[in-house]
Amino acid sequence: MSVADVGEFGLIDRVTARLGQGSACLLGPGDDAAVVSAPDARVVASTDVLVEGRHFRRDWSSALDVGHRAAAANLADVAAMGAVPTALLVALCLPAQVSPDWAEQLADGLGAEAAKVGASVVGGDMSASPTLTVAVTALGDLGGRAPVVRSGARPGDVVALAGRTGYAAAGYTVLSRGFRTPKLLVEAYRRPEVPYSAGPHAARLGATAMIDVSDGLLADLGHVAKASGVRVDVHRAAFEVPRQMRDAAQALGVDPYTWLLAGGDDHALAATFPPAVVLPAPWRPIGRVSAGAGVTVDGARYEGPAGWDHFR
Amino acid sequence: MSVADVGEFGLIDRVTARLGQGSACLLGPGDDAAVVSAPDARVVASTDVLVEGRHFRRDWSSALDVGHRAAAANLADVAAMGAVPTALLVALCLPAQVSPDWAEQLADGLGAEAAKVGASVVGGDMSASPTLTVAVTALGDLGGRAPVVRSGARPGDVVALAGRTGYAAAGYTVLSRGFRTPKLLVEAYRRPEVPYSAGPHAARLGATAMIDVSDGLLADLGHVAKASGVRVDVHRAAFEVPRQMRDAAQALGVDPYTWLLAGGDDHALAATFPPAVVLPAPWRPIGRVSAGAGVTVDGARYEGPAGWDHFR
Repeated sequence: MSVADVGEFGLIDRVTARLGQGSACLLGPGDDAAVVSAPDARVVASTDVLVEGRHFRRDWSSALDVGHRAAAANLADVAAMGAVPTALLVALCLPAQVSPDWAEQLADGLGAEAAKVGASVVGGDMSASPTLTVAVTALGDLGGRAPVVRSGARPGDVVALAGRTGYAAAGYTVLSRGFRTPKLLVEAYRRPEVPYSAGPHAARLGATAMIDVSDGLLADLGHVAKASGVRVDVHRAAFEVPRQMRDAAQALGVDPYTWLLAGGDDHALAATFPPAVVLPAPWRPIGRVSAGAGVTVDGARYEGPAGWDHFR
Repeated sequence: MSVADVGEFGLIDRVTARLGQGSACLLGPGDDAAVVSAPDARVVASTDVLVEGRHFRRDWSSALDVGHRAAAANLADVAAMGAVPTALLVALCLPAQVSPDWAEQLADGLGAEAAKVGASVVGGDMSASPTLTVAVTALGDLGGRAPVVRSGARPGDVVALAGRTGYAAAGYTVLSRGFRTPKLLVEAYRRPEVPYSAGPHAARLGATAMIDVSDGLLADLGHVAKASGVRVDVHRAAFEVPRQMRDAAQALGVDPYTWLLAGGDDHALAATFPPAVVLPAPWRPIGRVSAGAGVTVDGARYEGPAGWDHFR
């Protein structure tokens, strides 16, 4: 059976029946629009789109995995502003021959990832399309805090990281060479583990700038450096190569620091803090902000690939 | 030059440079997420996706047209809740060979349509994709009003319509038969004229249910009838066939009432009101709610096609 067999409204009914509702959802799927609580009187909103063949492959990731990843990419953007995610909306484009099960599993993944932060899928749209596409919008609440933007880093600030980098990129390389292990890396690619609460926590600690690491650590810190008009130096010694990553790197002939410093899609959070701030876990220092421009590693220009361009 | 030549970040810079900002936009494009004012402490949110070949054709509609239509479809959903739209987020998937001009014109159309209600494009995402896809999320503010849902229609209520029906469907038929005129109909298909302010106005007048007419009047009133557990009867005499539509219908061998009653994409607003409410323009009565189920036309089951299923 395909989505064409059950039809648009049949599929919407099947999918929405599976979705739980978070406490911020005042009116969920089924009307022209959802209504979501925004107690702060400001709403944080971000949209990210995943395209089959470019951001995921159905032979590498289950629908449940894709749901987790699509939700995580968006929820991380909200967390990176210092906000707590409240809701997701999902525009799903499906080839007509896809099984309705796939859409249902996707919804389960989206819902399960959102539930980690108390959020839920509150609305969406579906269409047939030759290209399987998942566009997600995440909403969030700042709880009275100022949003932590990319432009606030100041010379002297400490650069800190919460969460992992390089795992998803290593998993991607493993899969693209035809392997399915090590499981730790492959699973990290399929379902990022995002330190969501570290975002609002950083805001409360006085973070001056913050970004979600989706393109690659150096590329994303490059966005912070550019927006803030500063130079960001990353200390390579702050990154230990985990054993499984080291083994995989050796087996595949890859420099593991390419994964750690330039790999995207783990959705770690990177932030800058005034030097006096004592950083609690999961935040750990990885570098320093100074006057100047661009991103350096141990004071020198990084010669490897820095990140990812979705049109190239 | 193609979008692949300018790259993801180059294209994002070009597009965001063209976007004006509405008063509700507290932080616009360029960070991990936007921040939008939500003075009501609730936010209305809706997502609609347009897929090339299914919802639009580049030889029938300019990028500017597609921008207007994509924005209108979403802003109308927000208005149909009784809310005032505040912001749009846009996920744009583009084949790599598309010209950057196309994306810029699309952004202009989205921005111009949003500006009609004081809203703006506050964020988004872009990716390459084999299929040109525009997924838009609209946000809005209820200004202290209760949302007008689909489930509130009561027997005895008057059914009323604000805006046009049938024009976009007639324009679509005209284009699909290879014609480019009458301009009135073709333009209506390309850029719907949505009575946005009629939505919040209906909420203030005491509307019991409301819906945006996107699938077709009878299909959409069917959603209201089902959600409210009532029967909706539409009075055919309430619909005059405009001259240009009558001429086109005759020339193309179409019953114009198929367009008026079952044609979607004009994004009129349909609502139900208690019978004592005096309806000011643009609201006009078109039928009556009674006990029962389903939608009838002059008391009888309608035998034509009622609407549109996006998987069939």
